[in-house]
Amino acid sequence: MTGPLVRRLCLIGVGLIGGSWVRALRGAGQVGQVVGCGRTPENLERAVSLGVIDSYALDPAEAVQEADLVVVAVPLGAMAAVFRRIAPALAPDAVVTDVGSAKGTVIADARAELGSRLPDFVPGHPIAGTEKSGVEASFPDLFRGRRVILTPLDETRAEAVERVRAVWQVAGAVVSSMDARHHDDVLAATSHLPHVLAYGLVDSLSRWSDRDEIFQYAAGGFRDFTRIASSDPVMWRDICLANHEALTDALERYTADLQLLMEAVRARDGEQLMTVFQNARRARERFLAMLES
Amino acid sequence: MTGPLVRRLCLIGVGLIGGSWVRALRGAGQVGQVVGCGRTPENLERAVSLGVIDSYALDPAEAVQEADLVVVAVPLGAMAAVFRRIAPALAPDAVVTDVGSAKGTVIADARAELGSRLPDFVPGHPIAGTEKSGVEASFPDLFRGRRVILTPLDETRAEAVERVRAVWQVAGAVVSSMDARHHDDVLAATSHLPHVLAYGLVDSLSRWSDRDEIFQYAAGGFRDFTRIASSDPVMWRDICLANHEALTDALERYTADLQLLMEAVRARDGEQLMTVFQNARRARERFLAMLES
Repeated sequence: MTGPLVRRLCLIGVGLIGGSWVRALRGAGQVGQVVGCGRTPENLERAVSLGVIDSYALDPAEAVQEADLVVVAVPLGAMAAVFRRIAPALAPDAVVTDVGSAKGTVIADARAELGSRLPDFVPGHPIAGTEKSGVEASFPDLFRGRRVILTPLDETRAEAVERVRAVWQVAGAVVSSMDARHHDDVLAATSHLPHVLAYGLVDSLSRWSDRDEIFQYAAGGFRDFTRIASSDPVMWRDICLANHEALTDALERYTADLQLLMEAVRARDGEQLMTVFQNARRARERFLAMLES
Repeated sequence: MTGPLVRRLCLIGVGLIGGSWVRALRGAGQVGQVVGCGRTPENLERAVSLGVIDSYALDPAEAVQEADLVVVAVPLGAMAAVFRRIAPALAPDAVVTDVGSAKGTVIADARAELGSRLPDFVPGHPIAGTEKSGVEASFPDLFRGRRVILTPLDETRAEAVERVRAVWQVAGAVVSSMDARHHDDVLAATSHLPHVLAYGLVDSLSRWSDRDEIFQYAAGGFRDFTRIASSDPVMWRDICLANHEALTDALERYTADLQLLMEAVRARDGEQLMTVFQNARRARERFLAMLES
């Protein structure tokens, strides 16, 4: 008789992502005890009453005691402090992973703070989420069919990578690996850039003089387009700070193209507008076909 | 015994918008005969077999015979030619309306082409739609609870406005009136600008060297954000051309704000990023509350 894949899971930062992962593991019977950790008892009490965690501690060093899997799911700006605190307290067989949306700074923080436990750290990023946040919004199927990217270091133990991969697969995720720098470039384009554009648009419109009327006459397309501007501001501030180089590159490429499009509008260049709009529609169709296959 | 609100409706341009309006009127028993008009028999045959129109003509002058309501639902670039063709053929009691997304050019076209029938023309714009197009996508509830903006001219007969208002109300729409120029400014901000940004983003990404990988790792938020880039390119080219002044203004305001946001990312100004993101989230919450109330 074999036990569950994870004997004791420590979840530092109990929100949508970590909560959903734990729910999936519980549903599959692949986790024993779950210890939560966070800054305020209120959220942790709620997570206990929701059945996501069994118990909690406010001190990360206490929370990781005897855990064989530690999931760090805090905003990027809080990673270093957590790593520093847990490094000396980790159990000998503990594997540590994170769910941060940018990997470069997390890896730098891990190198600086994890010391001899660096080989047990597997940087990870589940490409899933909703504009909602908080453990109340968590659900077990969040990762089903979604991609999870692992960006292991040269030093990372192969067994640790396989362990984290297996635990993600229990949640139904499709796991792949890539270089951290490449991850950050790709995500800057497909996720960080659209978020900044949507936040920027809603912020911009909200400061125009006729703002209430503007929103009053907005239709469903606008709601979809701006949905991601409801995401957690702290999380997105930290992502922008952490991935500022790749994001700046992406913003520069995008605004250069947007300038050309503005010129086409200003010059009433219907042919150029058609070229851009048709190409965009075809590219989106390819993208949807890819998502579905 | 009173008859239906519309005895004979002529729909020029049989697609999502006109098809959905007719379906709503049929559901309410408020339309007698419906004659379609378009450039190709294939689409019109399909509309007949879907039960949207009863019959059709390829020539607008023929299609409007004896119609007491004429709905012009063609791309903005095709309005002038339709007005020119129908003006001499309209029944004495006919009221003409359109569903164009920009009103300035439609009104200029109507002034140039409708001659003595100008007072019977009621410019209109239903703020509804999906990224789908075509009569197959039409459904009777498309306008339920949605806003329709009428932008009557000084010359427009009050009875014609009331007629069009009443027919929209049958479809469940909330009808209001405003100045055409103001309409075009507001819609440039909430609809035309987001469409151009989304088209521009997908086009831009599709031309980056690692484009297939980029799309492969895009998540659900990206799908929402780019949904409107699946809209009909011809319709959107025409909207950009028709409303190019207001849209250029909106693009200039937005890109100026975006430059500031880029500077904040580049300079890693977390405080400024938080200000923008929090303001955007609050504004979007206000907007959603407004939509729901």
